[in-house]
Amino acid sequence: MKKLSIIKIGGNILDDASALSDFLHEFSNLPGYKVLVHGGGKLATELSTKLGIKTQMVEGRRITDAETLKVTAMVYAGWINKNLVAQLQALGCNSIGLSGADGLVIPAEKRAVKDIDYGFVGDITTSQINTDFLMNVIEFGITPVICPITADTNGQLLNTNADTIASTLASALSEFYETTLVFCFEQKGVLLHKEKPNSVIHKIDAFRYEVLKSEKIISDGMIPKLDNAFKAKQDGVHTVSIGHAKNLMNLLKQEEHAGTYIDN
Amino acid sequence: MKKLSIIKIGGNILDDASALSDFLHEFSNLPGYKVLVHGGGKLATELSTKLGIKTQMVEGRRITDAETLKVTAMVYAGWINKNLVAQLQALGCNSIGLSGADGLVIPAEKRAVKDIDYGFVGDITTSQINTDFLMNVIEFGITPVICPITADTNGQLLNTNADTIASTLASALSEFYETTLVFCFEQKGVLLHKEKPNSVIHKIDAFRYEVLKSEKIISDGMIPKLDNAFKAKQDGVHTVSIGHAKNLMNLLKQEEHAGTYIDN
Repeated sequence: MKKLSIIKIGGNILDDASALSDFLHEFSNLPGYKVLVHGGGKLATELSTKLGIKTQMVEGRRITDAETLKVTAMVYAGWINKNLVAQLQALGCNSIGLSGADGLVIPAEKRAVKDIDYGFVGDITTSQINTDFLMNVIEFGITPVICPITADTNGQLLNTNADTIASTLASALSEFYETTLVFCFEQKGVLLHKEKPNSVIHKIDAFRYEVLKSEKIISDGMIPKLDNAFKAKQDGVHTVSIGHAKNLMNLLKQEEHAGTYIDN
Repeated sequence: MKKLSIIKIGGNILDDASALSDFLHEFSNLPGYKVLVHGGGKLATELSTKLGIKTQMVEGRRITDAETLKVTAMVYAGWINKNLVAQLQALGCNSIGLSGADGLVIPAEKRAVKDIDYGFVGDITTSQINTDFLMNVIEFGITPVICPITADTNGQLLNTNADTIASTLASALSEFYETTLVFCFEQKGVLLHKEKPNSVIHKIDAFRYEVLKSEKIISDGMIPKLDNAFKAKQDGVHTVSIGHAKNLMNLLKQEEHAGTYIDN
């Protein structure tokens, strides 16, 4: 089975030109098939603020109204995605920027309104991923760079969590490749003590995850990230890890202490 | 030789949801290989105004400074491009949005500063077009939807005139396909009297073009459009025409009085 690396790069790295440049250099040097999935960063929030668009939160979750959708589509699919592609091209890594709508690569469905109307948020499922198209792109020697914008079958653009996209792509493609999924962000891994950057949990299984959640040691944004990580591992993704963008190579080599590995 | 239609859709149609929907319906029904190239529309200007970015003009030409580049990349490559792709997908036309950087499809060079520094403007040449990549996409059954954002080899995003992109792509691809190039906008064609929308010049050759330019009957934005149209025709593009987006089918069928045809 051929090998594939799916790397998710998080917001904070995207906001730091020097860290981003180092990361893209490492990424472009990765051998074999690879996919880059990126999140948003501060730029969307900054642009919303400048335009006077208020962030609506319900029970701690952001609501994507029409104006917010426009800002995120512009920033994620326009500015960030095309800059990443142009920079990878400059590094000799032939790449192509994709939203979920392009080549129907990630069909999405607007999240149904139950208790909360999340607005223009797109839910996706592993079985819907257009693996044929992705495999054609990858095996043609082009690296997909995927932004967290999707669309439904009515032509409505939607916003989908980038961690969910990375995890769902990894699940779908692990049928065809020995797939490694790495969530890169600005921390060395999942931390036992939030204020201690070196207190990395090197291995976590579902049981320990539940315990750490119940003890509130793992909370907030780390929960959906880990949920996505466990989902991917359960779906047959070969290796799933979480760590600092600057440790990308070590994370891929599964070197000890490089970050947090998911142990099913 | 297989047939290919390259359709450029101009700004004013993009600003009119109903006209755009009609156009996309017609476009999605076109038989055979096709490419859509789109311009900008009012949205970029509106966003610049909201953000307090002043349009700098030198000798009647817009200067693309860093802030303007960001706005155009966000609006063209993000919002407009992804909406067009999502709407075409909803119409059953499998499409993929591309900037010049994606798949290195249109390598560009920052315009050299002579008398005027145009800022982040990208010049492109027919011989540099990545026809291999485009043909692979097209023959895989996917319609490229191309926005006027390009990049140089240093990873710098640039702004390139959409008419120039359409014309240059048509020139490059006419080596492999019998290529038809149609510039669609909000007029029935090139007009003899600007205030008379039905005074369409049905056929124009280089000699008449020079005469009409010298008489100031053809002026302003119509000049670069016609320069691009004549360049394409001279480069061997089979048919080049200019007309109203709602007459797309008739323009392609070369029906009499459908618009203005370039006669070399």
